[in-house]
Amino acid sequence: MNSHTDLSRRRVLATGSAALAAAGLGGVSRVAAQAAPAAASQAKPLPAYVAWKDADSMIVHTPTTIETKRTAMGVGPITPAERLYIRNNIAAPDVSIVANRDAWQLAVEGVRQPRTLTVAELKSLGLETLVMVLQCSGNGRGYFASKPSGTPWRVGAAGNLFWSGVPVRAVAESLGGASADARFITGTGGETLPAGIDPRTVIVERSVPISTLGDALLAWEMNGEPVPHAHGGPLRLIIPGYSGVNNIKYIKRLAFTRDQTDAAIQATRYRIAPPGTKESPAQPAVWEMDPKSWINSPAPEAGPVRRGWVQIHGVAMGGMQAPRRVDVSLDGGKTWREASFIGPNLGRYAWRPFVLQADLKPGTYVLASRVTDSQGKVQVETTPENVGGYLNSGWRAHAVQVTVA
Amino acid sequence: MNSHTDLSRRRVLATGSAALAAAGLGGVSRVAAQAAPAAASQAKPLPAYVAWKDADSMIVHTPTTIETKRTAMGVGPITPAERLYIRNNIAAPDVSIVANRDAWQLAVEGVRQPRTLTVAELKSLGLETLVMVLQCSGNGRGYFASKPSGTPWRVGAAGNLFWSGVPVRAVAESLGGASADARFITGTGGETLPAGIDPRTVIVERSVPISTLGDALLAWEMNGEPVPHAHGGPLRLIIPGYSGVNNIKYIKRLAFTRDQTDAAIQATRYRIAPPGTKESPAQPAVWEMDPKSWINSPAPEAGPVRRGWVQIHGVAMGGMQAPRRVDVSLDGGKTWREASFIGPNLGRYAWRPFVLQADLKPGTYVLASRVTDSQGKVQVETTPENVGGYLNSGWRAHAVQVTVA
Repeated sequence: MNSHTDLSRRRVLATGSAALAAAGLGGVSRVAAQAAPAAASQAKPLPAYVAWKDADSMIVHTPTTIETKRTAMGVGPITPAERLYIRNNIAAPDVSIVANRDAWQLAVEGVRQPRTLTVAELKSLGLETLVMVLQCSGNGRGYFASKPSGTPWRVGAAGNLFWSGVPVRAVAESLGGASADARFITGTGGETLPAGIDPRTVIVERSVPISTLGDALLAWEMNGEPVPHAHGGPLRLIIPGYSGVNNIKYIKRLAFTRDQTDAAIQATRYRIAPPGTKESPAQPAVWEMDPKSWINSPAPEAGPVRRGWVQIHGVAMGGMQAPRRVDVSLDGGKTWREASFIGPNLGRYAWRPFVLQADLKPGTYVLASRVTDSQGKVQVETTPENVGGYLNSGWRAHAVQVTVA
Repeated sequence: MNSHTDLSRRRVLATGSAALAAAGLGGVSRVAAQAAPAAASQAKPLPAYVAWKDADSMIVHTPTTIETKRTAMGVGPITPAERLYIRNNIAAPDVSIVANRDAWQLAVEGVRQPRTLTVAELKSLGLETLVMVLQCSGNGRGYFASKPSGTPWRVGAAGNLFWSGVPVRAVAESLGGASADARFITGTGGETLPAGIDPRTVIVERSVPISTLGDALLAWEMNGEPVPHAHGGPLRLIIPGYSGVNNIKYIKRLAFTRDQTDAAIQATRYRIAPPGTKESPAQPAVWEMDPKSWINSPAPEAGPVRRGWVQIHGVAMGGMQAPRRVDVSLDGGKTWREASFIGPNLGRYAWRPFVLQADLKPGTYVLASRVTDSQGKVQVETTPENVGGYLNSGWRAHAVQVTVA
């Protein structure tokens, strides 16, 4: 989602029944650059590779950037695959890679006994399930006042999902353990790189601190089904609490490394760069997610609300720690009332739905929510602007105005 | 699933591309009785009304009895809608009832101020989410030695699901509370009854003890999406811990009653009747589910297992209480080892996946599992035979034999 190479800027000229080819960096003749942003009223159809998604629940920005509508966020804590957002940095590998999922190969490096393991072999090494918010690093970008370039996601580039697979630590242990000097876990995606371009500028390769080793998974299942190809199947690296880009799809190489990768996606993209600067390795990487919450209903998109008792609900996450409480304001943050969590606690990396009952008289309300995590860390009022428009979690910008009639 | 009227005995003559009309008790000319059970190798296509399900995951017994394959039970705790079983007593109402879900009407009786409420009104009264095992009362029937008539379900007439809606107690309170003499909650389904038949013999109307009031829901959402029509949308009664038939689909009437309904489905079906007797109101109703667990992998259906480390996994439920521990046997119950639960605890009415790692040498193994609930109640070794083939939870009958090569 870097401003220079953001595929989301590419707009498809979808005319009538023209086939929507999957957008890639190279050789896709049906994809043409188009300057004007799509009008909100001009709904684009789902591209063929995710035709199985629930079209009414999605906002198609481009074929590789597809958002969940606020009104399609359910009451329950888990996001169905049919409603989960899509954001690909480069085109996915061919779908034939999921024809025989157990045969997919992962090279493991930076361990005492490096070797390549198939998914079938990984399945013999351990089994764990966790719930994690998968959230695009740019979710909420549309709420930054400076309008950073990139997809103007609001709340819908995020979902809460079950992931099942083998703990990365079990894989490392089975191969003699990580090298003594390893400080990072570096994952490489299995995308086919476009020809004629320096691979380091486009490869999806990310490094995260080795402190994530405790909970990281190599997942072959999402929400009780094999990980869909569109979401990284046959095998996806899951770094709990870390933003979307760190969770490498179709992972083909996992390395314990002394340094961060020099791939552009790590070095000069996904960095928190103050306005007016350029993203560089000297700036913080987009890694851990922050405490964040938002209101899903009533939604301004759904029109006026009927007066009387209303269940105001939304979701609250802690990022790296479980949410402990969430407060809701009806007056744009002047006063707050504690809301109730609903449903089971799904662990520290999950979000929790919350509800506040209110008896609303006719008028206009600015609904906001503010989460506090188990360590006492409170959702910020305003996230500082940054060049890439990353990690916006400010409660004020996420407030919604609704009319009660 | 009573032996006298069981629709599951009706077999569809599916020839080539013949459309599979939804089976009902009346007027469906394409549905013909067929005596011979379908050969296991002769897979039937999904009927049109559930064409959205994952065909490879399902066993189509009849158009109204569709089972999840053991090999399609995921590692994660939640069953995706696409893999959830189907069992309808009579044909569903027309799908047009979900065109405007909020307009669906529920008559509430046996309260101080009886009235009819729309789903939109119900949504203003409260909001809760819980996880519940939905399990057909006849799940496991195929493992009874006496082969009771009815669908010979093995393990796949069950799923673990999020349900969101309004607590029934909140609805009752909003209408002045249940009548003082109420001992049961009686729900009536919205099916269109076939003409020319005494309605009491076919109506889907069930009574459950009022002790279920604490946790019962009127649910409009399942797994984060509106309850699919095939699973009871727009509104389904959820009686946590109670077997499938008690969870009334398309509920149109909810009554607090002094007595159980006299509908046949309550009075002379779904009763635990010893072999040689007839089901009658004098016998226990099929209500609460029992502690039960089973192995999903390795599955005998998946062929021989490769020698070495194997993750033996399955699911364990307590029924009315949370599972506390589960033990696994590799030798048909001679010796046991405690397995580990995986993933978050989803509450007392949910099942939990478990895993036991074992280093398997070549040979034949009989894998069994046995759950103990939080009150110390242990899964029975053998469930006594009963005429209807209900509530089979015996661990011995559910054991699977696998070959390691």
